[in-house]
Amino acid sequence: MQPPLTSCLIPPGSNPLRTHHRCLIGLALIVAVGCGEEPSTPDRFEHLFSGNLKVIDLTHSLSADMPYWPTPHGNPFRHDTLVAHPDGSPIMAAYFTPEHHGTHIDAPVHSREGRRPVDALTAADLFGPAAVIDVSKQAAANADYRATLEDFQAWESAHGRLPTGAIVLLSTGWSRKWDSIAAYQNLDELGRPHFPGFSDAAATWLVTERDIHGIGIDDLSVDYGASSDFAVHGIVNGAGKFHLENVANMHLLPATGAFLIVAPIKIEGGSGGQVRLFAVIP
Amino acid sequence: MQPPLTSCLIPPGSNPLRTHHRCLIGLALIVAVGCGEEPSTPDRFEHLFSGNLKVIDLTHSLSADMPYWPTPHGNPFRHDTLVAHPDGSPIMAAYFTPEHHGTHIDAPVHSREGRRPVDALTAADLFGPAAVIDVSKQAAANADYRATLEDFQAWESAHGRLPTGAIVLLSTGWSRKWDSIAAYQNLDELGRPHFPGFSDAAATWLVTERDIHGIGIDDLSVDYGASSDFAVHGIVNGAGKFHLENVANMHLLPATGAFLIVAPIKIEGGSGGQVRLFAVIP
Repeated sequence: MQPPLTSCLIPPGSNPLRTHHRCLIGLALIVAVGCGEEPSTPDRFEHLFSGNLKVIDLTHSLSADMPYWPTPHGNPFRHDTLVAHPDGSPIMAAYFTPEHHGTHIDAPVHSREGRRPVDALTAADLFGPAAVIDVSKQAAANADYRATLEDFQAWESAHGRLPTGAIVLLSTGWSRKWDSIAAYQNLDELGRPHFPGFSDAAATWLVTERDIHGIGIDDLSVDYGASSDFAVHGIVNGAGKFHLENVANMHLLPATGAFLIVAPIKIEGGSGGQVRLFAVIP
Repeated sequence: MQPPLTSCLIPPGSNPLRTHHRCLIGLALIVAVGCGEEPSTPDRFEHLFSGNLKVIDLTHSLSADMPYWPTPHGNPFRHDTLVAHPDGSPIMAAYFTPEHHGTHIDAPVHSREGRRPVDALTAADLFGPAAVIDVSKQAAANADYRATLEDFQAWESAHGRLPTGAIVLLSTGWSRKWDSIAAYQNLDELGRPHFPGFSDAAATWLVTERDIHGIGIDDLSVDYGASSDFAVHGIVNGAGKFHLENVANMHLLPATGAFLIVAPIKIEGGSGGQVRLFAVIP
């Protein structure tokens, strides 16, 4: 809406008071129309639901060709077409998958008895602002890198305190390796994986000193690949918070300003499950 | 923010032109401050991501006890705990399910060769305003009820034209029967299910005369249970639109004003799959 400011120029020889009265009424109308509780022009909320906000899909597609937690049995995902079109595409199919496979969530019960299963997480837990901490340079130099407390404090120095309800994402560069199982698992000669994770100190600080919903990472585990005790799992799930693992397209996210919609498959009593994960960039 | 309108009263004996100049500047400031692109008070968008908007979960939990498409084999869902806590709750589990089971989406390829699989649907397809057409009274009187074109036209007479990108939900009363497999399937003595659906004429009108994203229903199929040709499937999927089936809590939705987030499991090449389905009530 363009304010009719040209009508507020005082024409030569006119009564300036009368002209200003007209302008005041005009401006008051602008205020009333432009600042009402229900704006007549679409706001960010409406843009989200009309396809006019940028949404980044942070979800890898599930397939038998994708990276998986290294085991001698290979990728456990199965997708079986039950009835097919003439071209072979499915009319109906069924699938088998572990819950913690592909882009997925670890519900708190995954690592701590008595904590919530996946179907007990609600929208109040699953929607929140994203804080993206980039350690891809450190991880490129050292695949066993664990993001330190200082990494998170440096992020806060640059971007301000982690917002309430944040979903704290560690961007390690691994989301770009998804097309190579070998690069993504990064096994040594003994078959042990090497990829970065959160440090125990950082995880403890995040769940005790800040008010977050959960954490996420763009590789196979929030604990670094060489971990033997999975301490970060115990710390974060133990505090009743969730993890997101194998997050896609993390390298496309800004450090702040994105909002996440975490949409897990709702398995009754599940320890986790596949998520559809959208980042909204307003 | 309260506009300082009292200062715009013209004091007796003052120069009215000068007073009005001050008022103009004041009002211009109100416009600038109150209508900026980044409001200082949280808007509906921020409320959505801070847990301050009402969100209704339209998703039933997946379990082996839930209703299913009637077959002699029973409910095909399996959820197997692989590693358990001492109390039996899962540390890790795996599951098997047909794609079209529980609260799920039919991707266009489900009913028409060459149409999009589930992983090709994007946020632009999956987010949109909900239009809820209530035929629960008709369905209570006749379980074979098919919502007519007139039902949708009557909805438009009451609520206005179906919005662009609408997800059109048929509320049949069936979402309240979910706890009883017998009531939900409603089989006759020959084992044929009886539940309501869309009529062919209404489905054709929705995809040709209106600009919608998809349709949904709170029972087992968008075609009524006694259907033998699944014509609505062919009409809607054939037009490249999706269906949602077994939508939960439909009876809690208003006729207009809700916005849907449809979040399908992202199966590569899948004909559909489980969705997490949130309705946001701003």
